[in-house]
Amino acid sequence: MEELIQKLREFAQERDWGKFHSPKNLAIALSVEVAELLEEFQWLTEEQSRQPDQERLDRIKDEISDVMIYLVLLSDHLNIDPLTSAFEKIEKNRKKYPVDKAKGSAKKYTNL
Amino acid sequence: MEELIQKLREFAQERDWGKFHSPKNLAIALSVEVAELLEEFQWLTEEQSRQPDQERLDRIKDEISDVMIYLVLLSDHLNIDPLTSAFEKIEKNRKKYPVDKAKGSAKKYTNL
Amino acid sequence: MEELIQKLREFAQERDWGKFHSPKNLAIALSVEVAELLEEFQWLTEEQSRQPDQERLDRIKDEISDVMIYLVLLSDHLNIDPLTSAFEKIEKNRKKYPVDKAKGSAKKYTNL
Amino acid sequence: MEELIQKLREFAQERDWGKFHSPKNLAIALSVEVAELLEEFQWLTEEQSRQPDQERLDRIKDEISDVMIYLVLLSDHLNIDPLTSAFEKIEKNRKKYPVDKAKGSAKKYTNL
Repeated sequence: MEELIQKLREFAQERDWGKFHSPKNLAIALSVEVAELLEEFQWLTEEQSRQPDQERLDRIKDEISDVMIYLVLLSDHLNIDPLTSAFEKIEKNRKKYPVDKAKGSAKKYTNL
Repeated sequence: MEELIQKLREFAQERDWGKFHSPKNLAIALSVEVAELLEEFQWLTEEQSRQPDQERLDRIKDEISDVMIYLVLLSDHLNIDPLTSAFEKIEKNRKKYPVDKAKGSAKKYTNL
Repeated sequence: MEELIQKLREFAQERDWGKFHSPKNLAIALSVEVAELLEEFQWLTEEQSRQPDQERLDRIKDEISDVMIYLVLLSDHLNIDPLTSAFEKIEKNRKKYPVDKAKGSAKKYTNL
Repeated sequence: MEELIQKLREFAQERDWGKFHSPKNLAIALSVEVAELLEEFQWLTEEQSRQPDQERLDRIKDEISDVMIYLVLLSDHLNIDPLTSAFEKIEKNRKKYPVDKAKGSAKKYTNL
């Protein structure tokens, strides 16, 4: 992760793209990329989405990379470590959704 | 990252949430979380978005965690490593946006 | 539609909200509202989404209203009539997806 | 609006696309189209977004049409009239954001 952050900083600096990279703009870019990812699944059934063909899988991988890149760029601009904060969030969720209440429940899940 | 994947698998298994976690549904959840992140910036100017107050920053961190969690869950379901694929994408982008042509150019960036 | 535009202009003017309503910001707001709408469907199966219960239907109606409002506001700021342009788009699509080729085809649809 | 609904029903029926048009799928499609609209503004400043050039404006019009089409399709599937419900929502908002409190206030707006 640290290496990815370094590479992304370099990449943007070399191209003088810092001026475009306000957190607001990066959050927009992130949401545009996520929509391109979602587009790959939009007319598939849930079952089909579990087994995309190779061509689609390659495009999905490409979009996941773009999402990851913008997520890390945005986090870096705000001094947030997305891995560490994800771990913290899981601990919070562990309390919010205790196994005995949440198990297999769509209703609980719906209210997640 | 490997540890995060393990934790997320456990978390979903304990709660029997696998049935909700088709890649299609995870991509939807990802895009809902990204919108909650974007919402934090929506009425800020770009300048304001560079310096969010502590309360907002805490919410942003929370949303970034959710985005990270769903991105990793989705990737795991499709056997994609989001870190490795992000590195590969940067190499592709290096060829697509050579420094001499892309430097400081909003036009290039617009067409990214 | 004309009446809706008038009402929305008045509403924003009375509250002096014009300064927040750049097309960029309105497009962000639109995408945040659409995500809140999508959230209502995220853990439902396609079948369930055809028959939401009354409580969910009320929330959906609320979100559809918000989407409509921001779509009309954004269009108005750019002097676009969303109804007229929708009609024009349908005529374009009629040529792009001729009945004999598109009929019942997920493949065609996927490439829409 | 009534005419648009009729045309869209016909269009989908002729092509036998009803099976793809669950509300869940239409909400996904709507959010993908909104992201394509947002993409047009993503690297513009707010000021630039008020005066897009003709080429961009044509693309924006195209995307607004797609958003309108999916919004009306989705509403129709759930027997919701998006115009009527938008009017109702404005009345609700009138109470929620009284002029004297909301006027010019980013803070109020932020909490909208």
